[in-house]
Formats: sequence, structure tokens, C-alpha cells
Amino acid sequence: MSAEANSDTFREELWMWGQDDDKPRFLHTMIRVKDFDAALDFYIDGLGMKLMCKPFDVPARRVTATFVGFDSLEAGGCVEIVHLWDHEGDFTHGDGYGHFSVGTPDIEGTLARMVAKGAEVVVEPTVLIEGGPAVAFFKDLDGYQVELIQTKRTQ
Amino acid sequence: MSAEANSDTFREELWMWGQDDDKPRFLHTMIRVKDFDAALDFYIDGLGMKLMCKPFDVPARRVTATFVGFDSLEAGGCVEIVHLWDHEGDFTHGDGYGHFSVGTPDIEGTLARMVAKGAEVVVEPTVLIEGGPAVAFFKDLDGYQVELIQTKRTQ
Repeated sequence: MSAEANSDTFREELWMWGQDDDKPRFLHTMIRVKDFDAALDFYIDGLGMKLMCKPFDVPARRVTATFVGFDSLEAGGCVEIVHLWDHEGDFTHGDGYGHFSVGTPDIEGTLARMVAKGAEVVVEPTVLIEGGPAVAFFKDLDGYQVELIQTKRTQ
Repeated sequence: MSAEANSDTFREELWMWGQDDDKPRFLHTMIRVKDFDAALDFYIDGLGMKLMCKPFDVPARRVTATFVGFDSLEAGGCVEIVHLWDHEGDFTHGDGYGHFSVGTPDIEGTLARMVAKGAEVVVEPTVLIEGGPAVAFFKDLDGYQVELIQTKRTQ
């Protein structure tokens, strides 16, 4: 393919993760969800994430997906939310994958907000190691565990 | 508790995720692995991650854990690698959690390096959407899928 022909097909919006990186970078972690809109509301309105791009279809895979995160695509990891067009029922969770983790300056307030959004508390805010931050766990609407770590000292 | 007593128990190294954040932040994603040293070698020597802290024991949970990532704890997501002292055999993987994703300027070279480290290729580098970057998937030593996305245009 000639350089000219290639430049015709280049689509910058598809290179949202970078087109001139010189080293590897952590991009995101992916979860499949039953109710796409409910998951977006949970993570955006509840946890305070932002929509990183317009939800998009991948017809070849029969999925709709998007990315949510706290800052920008460059600053830290995002969560890819995927809806399978043909999947029925709940997703299953093995015993290998654990959770993803979010730092928050107000662990109690964040957990309360997530519970109001339908989260199930797994571990109430607890200082696991003396002198360290409080840590909590909840399950999201699809049963994925999310860890919260207090990232602001209040005492 | 008085401020003095509290400052005696405060341990800065346990607040590695931040102690004066003013907003939430994505921290890491956690996987349990069968062979702790093999997993560290896979992600550090293979994928080019760095050890973000000395491996540590949490006796209350009977686990050893550490974090690996590309830059710093602040810059982007890390992967928490956890070894359960009492777990035997392989971990199971449900159909919910998908993968975590790493951007790389050289998808072919990265994939070849991971295969040499024992990765199983799931999807060879493929341009999923015309005009976009190549994407590949491999399974790590414990069967977790990792996505690679080309983040440097070469043509």
C-alpha cells in the first residue's frame, strides 16, 4: 500500500490511545456488563468518572463499548465498559481476577454514594495495617468488586 | 486519639497511593497468580513493567502482594499481583471480566517477547476497524487476557 493510500484510511479518532508513544503504557481494564446505561450511570454519576469517548459499536464483535475514567485518557487507567448484544443473564466471576481499585479522599462518602446507586458493600472501611489508610470493597451492579482506598489523611 | 498518638502510628509507606488527594483516581487492577516470582518476571522482564514497591505480606489475609506498572504510582494504572498462601491449583475465569490493556509502540515485538515468556496468543495483531491501530490479545501464565494496542503509527 502506498503512503498516500494509507493516509487516506488513517482515522485519528481511532488512535485515541496514542499514535506516537515511545514506550508502553497501562491503558484500561475491561468489564462486560448486562445493562450498559445503568453501568455508565453507576460509574459516572456515582463514582465521579467521566465518559472518555462516545459509546461506539463494533459490529464485527457484536458489542457496544466505551471508556470511563477520572481525568484524561493519558492520565491513569480507565475502565472499558462492554455490552454484548447477544448475551443473556448474569456474567460469571471466577476466583482469579480480583478487583480494580480507586483512590478517594473521602472513603465513607464515596461508599455511601455507591450504595445509593445499588452497590453491595463487601468490606466496610477498615484499616488493614495499623498506620495505613482505610480500605473498603463493594460489588458493582454486575458483581465486580471495586476497592476504595482512602487517599487523604483526615487525622 | 490525640494528634501525637496518631502521628506515632502513622506509617507513610502505607500511604503510597496518596495522603492529600482532593479527587478520586484509578489506582490498579488486581489479579491472583499461582507462581508469584514467575508472574513478576513475566510482567517486569517481559512486558517492561517496574516493581512499584517491595513485595509485602498481609498475614491477616494470608497473601503476598506487590504492584507493577510502567512509570510511577501516580502516572497511570498499575497491576496488583497477589499470591494466596493457601491456594492450590489454577484460578478460574468467569465470562465477565475481560482483560487489561497495554499500549505499545511495537505490538509485534512486544507480543513476540511475551510469547517467549510463555504467553499464549489469543488474537494476532489485527486492525479491527479500518484506519485504526492494530490490536492483539494474549493470555498470561495464569490465563488472564491482556490486550495490546499499537500506540505508534509506523506508516
